[in-house]
Amino acid sequence: MSTASLTSHTALRVNGTRLWNSLMQLAQIGATPKGGVCRLALTDLDREGRDFFVGEAQAAGCTIRIDCVGNIFARRAGRDDSLPAILTGSHIDTQPTGGKFDGNYGVLAGLEVFKTLNDAKITTDAPLEVVVWTNEEGSRFVPVMMGSGAFIGEFKTDFILAQKDRDGITVGQALNAIGYAGTSQVSPRGIGAYFEAHIEQGPVLEAHDITIGVVTGALGQRWFDVVITGSEAHAGPTPMQLRHDALLAASHLVQLVNELALDHAPHARGTVGMLDVYPNSRNVIPGTVKMSVDLRADSDATLTEMVDKLNARAQVIAKQGKVSVALTQVVYFPPAAFAPELVQAVRAGARTIGLTEMDVVSGAGHDAVYLARVAPTAMIFVPCKDGISHNEIEDAKSEHLEAGCNVLLHAMLARASE
Amino acid sequence: MSTASLTSHTALRVNGTRLWNSLMQLAQIGATPKGGVCRLALTDLDREGRDFFVGEAQAAGCTIRIDCVGNIFARRAGRDDSLPAILTGSHIDTQPTGGKFDGNYGVLAGLEVFKTLNDAKITTDAPLEVVVWTNEEGSRFVPVMMGSGAFIGEFKTDFILAQKDRDGITVGQALNAIGYAGTSQVSPRGIGAYFEAHIEQGPVLEAHDITIGVVTGALGQRWFDVVITGSEAHAGPTPMQLRHDALLAASHLVQLVNELALDHAPHARGTVGMLDVYPNSRNVIPGTVKMSVDLRADSDATLTEMVDKLNARAQVIAKQGKVSVALTQVVYFPPAAFAPELVQAVRAGARTIGLTEMDVVSGAGHDAVYLARVAPTAMIFVPCKDGISHNEIEDAKSEHLEAGCNVLLHAMLARASE
Repeated sequence: MSTASLTSHTALRVNGTRLWNSLMQLAQIGATPKGGVCRLALTDLDREGRDFFVGEAQAAGCTIRIDCVGNIFARRAGRDDSLPAILTGSHIDTQPTGGKFDGNYGVLAGLEVFKTLNDAKITTDAPLEVVVWTNEEGSRFVPVMMGSGAFIGEFKTDFILAQKDRDGITVGQALNAIGYAGTSQVSPRGIGAYFEAHIEQGPVLEAHDITIGVVTGALGQRWFDVVITGSEAHAGPTPMQLRHDALLAASHLVQLVNELALDHAPHARGTVGMLDVYPNSRNVIPGTVKMSVDLRADSDATLTEMVDKLNARAQVIAKQGKVSVALTQVVYFPPAAFAPELVQAVRAGARTIGLTEMDVVSGAGHDAVYLARVAPTAMIFVPCKDGISHNEIEDAKSEHLEAGCNVLLHAMLARASE
Repeated sequence: MSTASLTSHTALRVNGTRLWNSLMQLAQIGATPKGGVCRLALTDLDREGRDFFVGEAQAAGCTIRIDCVGNIFARRAGRDDSLPAILTGSHIDTQPTGGKFDGNYGVLAGLEVFKTLNDAKITTDAPLEVVVWTNEEGSRFVPVMMGSGAFIGEFKTDFILAQKDRDGITVGQALNAIGYAGTSQVSPRGIGAYFEAHIEQGPVLEAHDITIGVVTGALGQRWFDVVITGSEAHAGPTPMQLRHDALLAASHLVQLVNELALDHAPHARGTVGMLDVYPNSRNVIPGTVKMSVDLRADSDATLTEMVDKLNARAQVIAKQGKVSVALTQVVYFPPAAFAPELVQAVRAGARTIGLTEMDVVSGAGHDAVYLARVAPTAMIFVPCKDGISHNEIEDAKSEHLEAGCNVLLHAMLARASE
């Protein structure tokens, strides 16, 4: 396909009904009574889901390749197969109480692009691939984003294959059991670009009544375990000034975490999601609080500034509250900036089609965040109902899913024909 | 004994070693490896403890009476047995990980007073009684302070006997099983005064290096269940301004509870002892927080003012945090003012002996708080190590326990001879 012919395909559109039906079909595998999906990585249900994907891809004329950690690559030949492939994809494993769209949408949107190109009898210059990444959710096996992380070299293959679930079953054993222990080397060679379409999993697009989120990058993350140690004492006999109340100190820390994020609006985030009180008895002043801190920002400089303030001001809180505060970093993901030319391809795709769009930053981790380290990468977000995800009531509108798939189509066409 | 003879007994002292030994002997029944005591109400161990008390009391010449809820009254005859009895006592049931002194001290101090009077061949005008109240702790059966509450008419006897433990065993069944289902009517008639000696269970006396706490009354208490409802959302994709963070709102409520108490220093207390976060996951903004609020003050007016502010300001916090806050009162104990003439008897006793003393208010509930509703009542506090109680490491100094017992002796003598 020449650049001239790109213009001739401006009017090309995916089949939204077909996309929706494929999503509903995949959602039957592991469907929950509440309308969600429970399809944990490398279970028999995951095998059924993978089989469904492979069947659809083969029906669309793709060749299938599976690597040693179970990532599946469905390849649509290009005019020049020596060109780097243009990839899209996501994951089909879900949370234990997950929804129909998280991950699944990115995979099936890729297949819908292929079907649309088939219908229009279009062959791209570069080959195209839809990828299903193994175990993005991390619900059964850790680490999360396992398949893409292994793919880009963040984790060694042997390490991944030896990871165990709660029953002691390894990733390697589980891959063999479901027949998805591939032989292809886990390697990121020959990628021209990576696109990932995904529901937003947040409320920003819906709040702005915008259809397409042009994702410019992903927030960096630093997570901490915090232990606050005071002294347990009876709530009645202990005067206020003689207390060492771990929960009172924790309350100041919760507010500090919130303020650190507000100080770096609009992209910074600060969250205490987990907080446990000991002994957690009505009339006992809490002696210990264990809590999490999750800080996110769009630059490492901002993230470092937030962490420095957290550490410094936590000690002030400790002194004022006559308690001790210990912080331990447990997770670090650097911020990811997506490739400007791909981000522009997404933006241009949306505008060509006449969709409303806005730049957004991904607050959550995605396989694309790893891919961005080895290849030009971009993401396309579409709204989800009330911003809710990782929940059986996760929902999205067919028209939005179709719109995002059309943007994916045109962004991939733009890259594959260069 | 005439007022003239009171003077002649000013030099009378209890046997501190004998008191300590009896405490250590009772502490063997239900002793825990960590040096504490687990002797839950109406268990076989409680029976052993009661048998020990009854044996000691009978050896000291007492007659034993047991009422229908298992309260034990050991009576030392007076010169005129038609006079209202002067009572002292406490409880011998413990927390599951309780200490050697909580309750036990008040009971054995009473017996030590009797032994001392026996040694000195003193007969008081009014009869004296040492009472063991059933189930003060409330660890196995609720309500707490069951025996004294029934005694003063707060609970009907039938209600108490029908209360069940976790295994479905009723108080009535348990009393029968250990042989302490008495026949005496549960009635507070004929009490001239009630004294209770107790470890402070708080840090005030130790902090001031004072031996005797002259307890002028007990704080009133209002306890609340609080439910804060926001919305669960992903910590990453959800911008700060679109959040409905239940824990952030809870942090303001924790600080409000603390401020309410500080605003009414020195006697008011405000404590959040229990706080549960849902779903309590690191990267999920908390959608719900359930927490307790425990407010205490020395007057009903203050307590009401604190509760009014709590209710009003909780709604401001709710509005600002875009969450809802629901408060439900679950416990109310009115403040108890002890009888001035008995409080003075305690103070005078301490001064006669030459002990350091200060007025204190009991922050915790005690059997004496119920007794104060039907009879002139006072309490004597002695320091405990680091203010720690309801803990196996609860500790107290023999010299302090002896001092408190001497104050009890002289306070009882002063009342019994009038």
